[in-house]
Amino acid sequence: MENTPPDHRLTLPVTFGDCDPAGIVFYPNFFRWFDRCFHDFMFVRAGGHAALCAQLGSAGIGLMEADAKFRAPVRENQTLELEMRATAWHEKAVRLDYAAYLGDRLALTGHELRGVFVMRDGRMGAGEVAPLRAALGL
Amino acid sequence: MENTPPDHRLTLPVTFGDCDPAGIVFYPNFFRWFDRCFHDFMFVRAGGHAALCAQLGSAGIGLMEADAKFRAPVRENQTLELEMRATAWHEKAVRLDYAAYLGDRLALTGHELRGVFVMRDGRMGAGEVAPLRAALGL
Amino acid sequence: MENTPPDHRLTLPVTFGDCDPAGIVFYPNFFRWFDRCFHDFMFVRAGGHAALCAQLGSAGIGLMEADAKFRAPVRENQTLELEMRATAWHEKAVRLDYAAYLGDRLALTGHELRGVFVMRDGRMGAGEVAPLRAALGL
Amino acid sequence: MENTPPDHRLTLPVTFGDCDPAGIVFYPNFFRWFDRCFHDFMFVRAGGHAALCAQLGSAGIGLMEADAKFRAPVRENQTLELEMRATAWHEKAVRLDYAAYLGDRLALTGHELRGVFVMRDGRMGAGEVAPLRAALGL
Repeated sequence: MENTPPDHRLTLPVTFGDCDPAGIVFYPNFFRWFDRCFHDFMFVRAGGHAALCAQLGSAGIGLMEADAKFRAPVRENQTLELEMRATAWHEKAVRLDYAAYLGDRLALTGHELRGVFVMRDGRMGAGEVAPLRAALGL
Repeated sequence: MENTPPDHRLTLPVTFGDCDPAGIVFYPNFFRWFDRCFHDFMFVRAGGHAALCAQLGSAGIGLMEADAKFRAPVRENQTLELEMRATAWHEKAVRLDYAAYLGDRLALTGHELRGVFVMRDGRMGAGEVAPLRAALGL
Repeated sequence: MENTPPDHRLTLPVTFGDCDPAGIVFYPNFFRWFDRCFHDFMFVRAGGHAALCAQLGSAGIGLMEADAKFRAPVRENQTLELEMRATAWHEKAVRLDYAAYLGDRLALTGHELRGVFVMRDGRMGAGEVAPLRAALGL
Repeated sequence: MENTPPDHRLTLPVTFGDCDPAGIVFYPNFFRWFDRCFHDFMFVRAGGHAALCAQLGSAGIGLMEADAKFRAPVRENQTLELEMRATAWHEKAVRLDYAAYLGDRLALTGHELRGVFVMRDGRMGAGEVAPLRAALGL
């Protein structure tokens, strides 16, 4: 998978405040960076989350699941190169795979499964993702 | 799994600042709460992370992987009841399962795989978790 | 000021993830707790920020300024007792003073100046706070 | 003050997860960015916080006080230009002033007062900042 070019890429300088008393990145921050990456991608391709929601009639392009596998500790003042790939388009969900590097070294991998949430009869539910795919040019 | 009593439990009042422009919890915060739950458990059972590390000769009891599956949106001023269960003790990792409820409704599930990291020859690696299990009384 | 009874009070258990590589609370988190305290107060007194905004025709009850003075380090597994007092009602701003204790010891003080923001002619501006004061029963 | 060249500068792209249900930056994040800016400055000038602490025999270069005044709302997908100036060197504290712009518009100002904390007789206290000033080349 890492051999295909990424759909999006972010350079993330890690700071003191991202780290915990063990001196390494407090792990929920990696998910903040996954989320930042996808939102930045939406901004570049389609004007951002709010614009996309307006276009798609959606209340939010949000999470169904997320995971990460941590391979190497990441510390303050290191720079993480994060890559994102949209790897599977299901009827009502898109899978985004992430890989983050410290130089040549793979530091972590992860994924998000996201849906296009719509309000129907006062309840939030997942709609089809084909219009999202088209809007993002994927 | 949810039928066995949890090993630990936290009541988490959700606040405005935990939520994002879509009005629901910004998902990395759920991982902050998983981590908080396990650290609180270490505190109650063994004096906390730092005391345990000193006892076990460890640099940190940290993450190998984490995931979450989101079933229902969680909003400000709701109260999440988070349950944690140590469900598997491998040689060099322990699996912690989480389930979070809004009243009777399951809002999300997730897990963490944690190791007891030790410095050996200048490199961080995973040590055996049996001493952690004993220290936690599990 | 600390001799008058607080308008609101929160008990805040400090966790590992709130702390930085120096082993003490990463200071922006104290502001998260100030904000949490005022939002909890709005919830108890008036159904929460969203309900208050609807009642007052406001886009948000937000910040004009905030500060904190740090007197003692706060560490994981300590419990902070946070007190809030509405100490001054100006025409278009309310001042909230905060004091946080570790047992009997004052760990930090701070304040927020908040306004009731309203949209007028497409621009956000501060409205009068008297209706907020009445809604909060202060 | 804004007429003198800044000692350090950061470009900060604001993301969805930095914002709250009112759709604007959750204000504690501005303090995260102040802290990030000073830590990045320490990294550029002196190898970072940990290296500086080792050099100065300090347990941490931490906060005595911090404040911010918010002049304009900041939203997702905007880019904040943050400037930092060391404006006063006291015997045991340095004052850092911050100003953040959206294009030409001043969005917020703030300051931090930081000390060089040292352990003496088992208690944390503020040491002299002249060695910090020299190490940072200010």
